[in-house]
Amino acid sequence: MVDGCPPRLDVDLGDIQRQMDRRKPGQSRFTTQRREDDEVKILSGVFEDELTGGLKTTGTPISMLIENKDQRSKDYSEIRDKYRPGHADFTYFEKYGIRDYRGGGRASARETAARVAAGAIARLVIPAVTIRASLVQIGPYRIDRSRFDWHEVDNNPLFCADRQAASDWADYLDGLRKSGDSVGAVVEVVATGVPPGWGAPVYGKLSADLASAMMSINAVKGVEIGEGMHAAELTGSANADEMRAGPEAPWFKSNKAGGILGGISNGDPVVVRFAVKPTSSILTPRQTVTMDNRNTDIVTKGRHDPCVGIRAVPIGEAMMACVLADHFLRHRAQTGRDGGVGY
Amino acid sequence: MVDGCPPRLDVDLGDIQRQMDRRKPGQSRFTTQRREDDEVKILSGVFEDELTGGLKTTGTPISMLIENKDQRSKDYSEIRDKYRPGHADFTYFEKYGIRDYRGGGRASARETAARVAAGAIARLVIPAVTIRASLVQIGPYRIDRSRFDWHEVDNNPLFCADRQAASDWADYLDGLRKSGDSVGAVVEVVATGVPPGWGAPVYGKLSADLASAMMSINAVKGVEIGEGMHAAELTGSANADEMRAGPEAPWFKSNKAGGILGGISNGDPVVVRFAVKPTSSILTPRQTVTMDNRNTDIVTKGRHDPCVGIRAVPIGEAMMACVLADHFLRHRAQTGRDGGVGY
Amino acid sequence: MVDGCPPRLDVDLGDIQRQMDRRKPGQSRFTTQRREDDEVKILSGVFEDELTGGLKTTGTPISMLIENKDQRSKDYSEIRDKYRPGHADFTYFEKYGIRDYRGGGRASARETAARVAAGAIARLVIPAVTIRASLVQIGPYRIDRSRFDWHEVDNNPLFCADRQAASDWADYLDGLRKSGDSVGAVVEVVATGVPPGWGAPVYGKLSADLASAMMSINAVKGVEIGEGMHAAELTGSANADEMRAGPEAPWFKSNKAGGILGGISNGDPVVVRFAVKPTSSILTPRQTVTMDNRNTDIVTKGRHDPCVGIRAVPIGEAMMACVLADHFLRHRAQTGRDGGVGY
Amino acid sequence: MVDGCPPRLDVDLGDIQRQMDRRKPGQSRFTTQRREDDEVKILSGVFEDELTGGLKTTGTPISMLIENKDQRSKDYSEIRDKYRPGHADFTYFEKYGIRDYRGGGRASARETAARVAAGAIARLVIPAVTIRASLVQIGPYRIDRSRFDWHEVDNNPLFCADRQAASDWADYLDGLRKSGDSVGAVVEVVATGVPPGWGAPVYGKLSADLASAMMSINAVKGVEIGEGMHAAELTGSANADEMRAGPEAPWFKSNKAGGILGGISNGDPVVVRFAVKPTSSILTPRQTVTMDNRNTDIVTKGRHDPCVGIRAVPIGEAMMACVLADHFLRHRAQTGRDGGVGY
Repeated sequence: MVDGCPPRLDVDLGDIQRQMDRRKPGQSRFTTQRREDDEVKILSGVFEDELTGGLKTTGTPISMLIENKDQRSKDYSEIRDKYRPGHADFTYFEKYGIRDYRGGGRASARETAARVAAGAIARLVIPAVTIRASLVQIGPYRIDRSRFDWHEVDNNPLFCADRQAASDWADYLDGLRKSGDSVGAVVEVVATGVPPGWGAPVYGKLSADLASAMMSINAVKGVEIGEGMHAAELTGSANADEMRAGPEAPWFKSNKAGGILGGISNGDPVVVRFAVKPTSSILTPRQTVTMDNRNTDIVTKGRHDPCVGIRAVPIGEAMMACVLADHFLRHRAQTGRDGGVGY
Repeated sequence: MVDGCPPRLDVDLGDIQRQMDRRKPGQSRFTTQRREDDEVKILSGVFEDELTGGLKTTGTPISMLIENKDQRSKDYSEIRDKYRPGHADFTYFEKYGIRDYRGGGRASARETAARVAAGAIARLVIPAVTIRASLVQIGPYRIDRSRFDWHEVDNNPLFCADRQAASDWADYLDGLRKSGDSVGAVVEVVATGVPPGWGAPVYGKLSADLASAMMSINAVKGVEIGEGMHAAELTGSANADEMRAGPEAPWFKSNKAGGILGGISNGDPVVVRFAVKPTSSILTPRQTVTMDNRNTDIVTKGRHDPCVGIRAVPIGEAMMACVLADHFLRHRAQTGRDGGVGY
Repeated sequence: MVDGCPPRLDVDLGDIQRQMDRRKPGQSRFTTQRREDDEVKILSGVFEDELTGGLKTTGTPISMLIENKDQRSKDYSEIRDKYRPGHADFTYFEKYGIRDYRGGGRASARETAARVAAGAIARLVIPAVTIRASLVQIGPYRIDRSRFDWHEVDNNPLFCADRQAASDWADYLDGLRKSGDSVGAVVEVVATGVPPGWGAPVYGKLSADLASAMMSINAVKGVEIGEGMHAAELTGSANADEMRAGPEAPWFKSNKAGGILGGISNGDPVVVRFAVKPTSSILTPRQTVTMDNRNTDIVTKGRHDPCVGIRAVPIGEAMMACVLADHFLRHRAQTGRDGGVGY
Repeated sequence: MVDGCPPRLDVDLGDIQRQMDRRKPGQSRFTTQRREDDEVKILSGVFEDELTGGLKTTGTPISMLIENKDQRSKDYSEIRDKYRPGHADFTYFEKYGIRDYRGGGRASARETAARVAAGAIARLVIPAVTIRASLVQIGPYRIDRSRFDWHEVDNNPLFCADRQAASDWADYLDGLRKSGDSVGAVVEVVATGVPPGWGAPVYGKLSADLASAMMSINAVKGVEIGEGMHAAELTGSANADEMRAGPEAPWFKSNKAGGILGGISNGDPVVVRFAVKPTSSILTPRQTVTMDNRNTDIVTKGRHDPCVGIRAVPIGEAMMACVLADHFLRHRAQTGRDGGVGY
């Protein structure tokens, strides 16, 4: 459900579906082999204009439905009676006293399909902004920044801007998969074309909302903006993004800030990274307990991603789009401007 | 302004002030020498019970006022006409077209005094929870975890649980201060006594709210929960917190999750770290531009912290308290329980 | 979409559907003859417990879907090109610059089906509260309070607690329908079993939320609590609800306040009335303009209620349930209590 | 505290104070004789521009403080130990288990001073909108609409647009005051210059937010928009506001809708009325109970308004301003337009 979307935006169902297809499982041997079409139906909030024949937003809530087509009638007894380590089984039960154990219930990463659909709408709200993401680390291996090329991202199944790294990592992932293990990853999301002025002070910071949005993605354990955790190691003289006068407006000599100063965009690319923990569902037996507090072991069979970080790439883009679109609207509300230099 | 606080909690003004005093400047040579009393006046929301003579919350909004006593009538022309690199001067002007240049205006870290005051109230809401924080890294130097001792935190001016590190770092900081430079830091905040069940799925995750809260603190550029960014390097078998049956409830053999699974607390300590960038106000000259887009240099004179990360320690505790208190109330609303095992 | 519902509540689909059936059209000659089943499907947020076989809420968002089965492929040219007086056609177009003219789009009273479904869930949250409503006025005719009997409400197609009035009004409504006209009505909603303590001061008043909830129903133009508009005519001595000591707690000698004092429930029945304007879609020709600002007339053919106030009875109940359930949860959050006397 | 205010609006402290002075007590013999200056101090969110010398909003939260200067050290034992009928004494205690009995605590109508201050800021946000209000009924007496003249409102102490009525009612009020009684009233608030398009469907209706805002004012028991409760008596043919083509845009032949259709403004004056119950603090003895549930009588001595509806006139204006300013900002966010005809 996407509420507050501006009216009269052109909606291309194909564009939305292309975003969905990037996230959906089964696209390569590195993601789960579950078959889900992730077909989006729009139930409300759009209208087909008779004159132009095109679909447009109406300004009222856009309700989208993605049906789960791959619900197998299978034996859930293993995960019904045991808590899977690293999963939310235990915490959901302790919170609610009831647990839909089928596929993780509300905690299933399948909910991220909805984020991608919403992100596709959000992109329509901020057409001048380009949002891209790349896998930049998998396990201990990082990309070589000198080989970074956005065009490569959709040319390899790992969504990695470093073509060579993507190739190297394939073997590593195959090994993990065969050994029944998994691994973590880091995703970097970059938005260019964000004008200065989006965001707000104190509790309404663009950085805070991005941190919340990325940390809300399943399995994310860390979020960085610009230099991120590394900022701790820098001196003030090394960290300052110095400014120079440009033809029309000042520009920054570096972007250690990741495009955000004081919680407000500064016109430079907004750069966010987040760490995704390794898939918790693995074939390696792990110690755990049963629902009635007895010791046992568990092996989570089934069709799981060896690295959920891969499919987190389009999800990170979607969350960036949602947060930016929201801040664009809030900025326009308060100032009557779209953002950008020159008062 | 703290709204939604439960009624009939005992308020000790001395306790609140003690929290304020930990954050206030001028406590050591490692923090700014500005003199601010940071005295909190409570304007509403508390009532002195005639029978007991004690101050209690009434359940209505608690309004607290901290007056700025150290507003010097000084020359602001330097920062009025130039943008300070690393500060919000440029972004505030681009957002609003007007800028209160005196001391940073709304972007001044002085606003964090209010966070500490609010945190002191929040602690009253969750008395069974203990919240502590420590500086764990400053520039390139990290603490030695084997020397970690919470009791040391308030025994050194760096709020560092590693007494030896605090001592070693003092020289390093003195050097930085004398050279007119600054440095970043990492703060670790730990909450013990949080029962399982606080938090919510998807966009209401405890982890997401903690990320937002910490990232909203001035100068914070990264937030981690549990293994944080390091989770990317782990395999699934190494990352899983295995479980064992306890006398009354299951327990976890490790806490790589930082006490949160699926956005909901699991009963283990909630562990959050955040990186604070180096103070942007430094005596080292930096290139910048004037308000009318001409090149210039700037030296930010004045009384600045060589490492704002130090004073971020009580601020991080306060934000942890606010987020946890909020989630406790939301959990109690939905389930009628305070949290904890045993349905 | 109902979010925040407590977990482990027993859900009876039949109960929900019975509420839906009260609102759905075609139940008598006094409501529109459109055929809609208003069948509710629950897509999420409930789980069938294997042991008991019953459906229970899981604490996660309850998504309900009501499909529109009676979308006729009809000629919308009349309402596509003209603004219908009393409808939102003009304002939607002026707001959004686009308008889904089929059946009123988002402004269609068909959206109130969702309110009734949500209200059925809300009732589960506050099982000790009984919520009932009655038509108490139709056009110039009011019920006779001496004949008021809640048991009559579901015995006549007008949801009227005064059996005689319901009978008398049937002829009046038949006349209106035949003449192609419509009429307004007043609905009274009463909640008994609400303990003292629900609500909050200033902007969080139970009365304010009830006013908003009722005024948000299609065609509602006025909302009253207790004496309502009539309170203006009373003197202070006549209006005061005097109190007497009861065996365990004080009681009120009258209920002019409608169960709410200072925005907080006082334990007496919560009494709300609202006025529904006459159906705007009538067969009597009305002057209006075309989309391109030319004068014309319009006759809104189709299957319309002669008095939309009738079907507003179950909708008013549903909104009362939603507001009370929300305030119950907020009260429990802040105080840890369900409400009720005796500190 | 006013958050979200656009930046660079000119703030005239004198204008704000003039609004405050209209509400403040002691302006005539018909309002309480308490002496309160209601002087507003602005603590944040404004900045004095050096070039122009004028005060402007900065876009950051505007914090205003109104100190209570007339806190007499008096004997509160009467209201400390007894519940005053019609007041929130009982409900506050039942909710919170603690009660600040001095002057009503948080339930004191003194909080409406803050509403008027906020309303003065809100007016700056929508300068093209004119908001006026008048007392239109007091007890059983209504104004004569044929004598309605907005210019009279500030010429009499009753804020009544009907000069003759104001004069007639003075005697009536004197009689009530002498007899130690009080009376209710109806206030009508009208906003002209609201363009079509402000508001939103379903739960975001302008009408719903106005109903909530007015009902949240102390002592208000009913809210009407346009025809209000009277709409129940009308037929559809009588109630429809017919439309005609204007030179540039359509216009309405009548305004029974009170300027709102489907929750969205239609360009006509927004007309809201609300009923204020009689002052509950009266000198006539009333039956009540003590805090320990024993029967007693109470006479509320002190300095009370014989009709709190009078001072509700500027408060109603303020709430109208706040709601409209909010909806203007929301409309601008979503559509990028200020509102108004002509796509």
